[in-house]
Amino acid sequence: MYTFKEISDRIEAEVEQLRFPYSPESLYTPIEYILSLGGKRVRPALTLIGCNIFNDSVEDSVQAALALEVFHNFTLLHDDLMDQADIRRGQPTVHRKWDANTAILSGDAMLIVAYRLITEIRNPQTPLFIKLFSDMALEICGGQQYDMKFENRTDVTEEEYLEMIRLKTAVLLGTALKIGALSGGATPEQADLLYEYGINIGLAFQLKDDLLDTYGDAATFGKNIGGDILCNKKTYLLINALQMATAAQYTELLNWMDKKQFNPEEKIRAVRSVYDELNIQRLCENKIESYYKNAQEILQSPLLPQGRLSVLSEVSNKLMFRES
Amino acid sequence: MYTFKEISDRIEAEVEQLRFPYSPESLYTPIEYILSLGGKRVRPALTLIGCNIFNDSVEDSVQAALALEVFHNFTLLHDDLMDQADIRRGQPTVHRKWDANTAILSGDAMLIVAYRLITEIRNPQTPLFIKLFSDMALEICGGQQYDMKFENRTDVTEEEYLEMIRLKTAVLLGTALKIGALSGGATPEQADLLYEYGINIGLAFQLKDDLLDTYGDAATFGKNIGGDILCNKKTYLLINALQMATAAQYTELLNWMDKKQFNPEEKIRAVRSVYDELNIQRLCENKIESYYKNAQEILQSPLLPQGRLSVLSEVSNKLMFRES
Repeated sequence: MYTFKEISDRIEAEVEQLRFPYSPESLYTPIEYILSLGGKRVRPALTLIGCNIFNDSVEDSVQAALALEVFHNFTLLHDDLMDQADIRRGQPTVHRKWDANTAILSGDAMLIVAYRLITEIRNPQTPLFIKLFSDMALEICGGQQYDMKFENRTDVTEEEYLEMIRLKTAVLLGTALKIGALSGGATPEQADLLYEYGINIGLAFQLKDDLLDTYGDAATFGKNIGGDILCNKKTYLLINALQMATAAQYTELLNWMDKKQFNPEEKIRAVRSVYDELNIQRLCENKIESYYKNAQEILQSPLLPQGRLSVLSEVSNKLMFRES
Repeated sequence: MYTFKEISDRIEAEVEQLRFPYSPESLYTPIEYILSLGGKRVRPALTLIGCNIFNDSVEDSVQAALALEVFHNFTLLHDDLMDQADIRRGQPTVHRKWDANTAILSGDAMLIVAYRLITEIRNPQTPLFIKLFSDMALEICGGQQYDMKFENRTDVTEEEYLEMIRLKTAVLLGTALKIGALSGGATPEQADLLYEYGINIGLAFQLKDDLLDTYGDAATFGKNIGGDILCNKKTYLLINALQMATAAQYTELLNWMDKKQFNPEEKIRAVRSVYDELNIQRLCENKIESYYKNAQEILQSPLLPQGRLSVLSEVSNKLMFRES
């Protein structure tokens, strides 16, 4: 079995070797740029780990892992443009470094490159991989669409929010594990268990993101704390605060959300203080804990090779208990 | 054999029946909208015609035809956004009717839907169709990239321009015919001949577009004459005029291109008068004629079933000798 370090190093080396020798160069330079910005490479790592649970070699899953990492970065590229984000991983986003049209067109090419990678896998199951990939890709578009629609609403329910992050974040983690598992020789039932595991870890992962953005430690988090509060992002925290608030707390939250001019520190402090009164941090931690427990229970299935799950548990723990 | 009318009716009925029963609805409404705007449906028609040359039934090519029409409309959707076009087929473009983010995201979903259609074809050759589709899709992105780069240049050569329209327009017509032919049972050599035929027709088709935009009859053309001149579009006409101009003519063209404020009628008249002095219309007609002749020669190959090519010739003639 591979260690997590070995898996990570392999992914990094493979991503670095990805080349796009097509012309025009100006279409592919932004693709190489966003892929070079790094990131946790969680999705391709999960694909290799999923494969390695069922197979001592990870070779048969490497190409799928790359396809998913390219696809993930395509979503970041277009999402950054739609969200008008300036910075990605400490560097200018593609539409800032180049322009909006470059981001649109290089993103389109990136989606096609991801499809090309997945369709070129030499495996009798490739048609199934392509289907899983397309289903997931459309779900992610749906998740982004819900996320954008939520911006103009103050009545988003917890259920709607959880469905949105399932689509936008969790299905990619689930699909990464599932395609990896199938590449390694898992049965459909085993692959489905890992998919469900990925969904639960993915939901917990996104909720942890929400939590860290408001309650993280600025020194270790790497981004400014309170960014979500400043832009009124409909996170698990805000949605529940709006639902649970007293009339006075509701008015206070809405007032802050409506303000065009404000002192950032003051807004963060005020909104967080409502969260604190409502014990929102604990609520979010409990939700994370419950998804994490679901995931752990799935992993205890007698259908899975219990002696080969340690790296998957290790990476999940890293995602759950991270501070950045 | 099907008549052109039967082919067209079949395509129209199939496009109309295309449904996207996925959620959220707001992601798919723009896709149904752009597909409902009509258009010539040239690409899917070529796929069915390509099939029908080798097979009395066109059933095995219908799904590929739909995939190509969805893909073509995806390119229109994103190109209209990049070009900031307001009108498509007499109706507001998607980014005007909704907004830029809707156009980006629904376009992405549309590309995925096109892939889903092509990958779900039940045919042993589907992996080849997917490869041809991906190659073509990346070439079209490359063509759009060149087209946008040309906007800021006045030294585009005829060779560069022809390569750009080959990528942006012709490869889709070639691929539509090729996949149709293969679906119908053509040999690889026969399919390649039809691909080359499609390339030549596609180049002629785009040059005809350039010609009609400046020299068409306003009453039958359906768009205002001179639009390309007004926005300094690097067409075959302008590129050759810039290359062939005397110093005085060159200065005149550049002056008109630099002007921010002008009378549209006056600019069109002035630029067209330089074209006329240089006999650019004839030059373009000759170029169209030469591609058309190439295409006709390809069609005379003894490898092709000569008795079954009449509908293909008919549709090519329609494209060549159209006035709108």
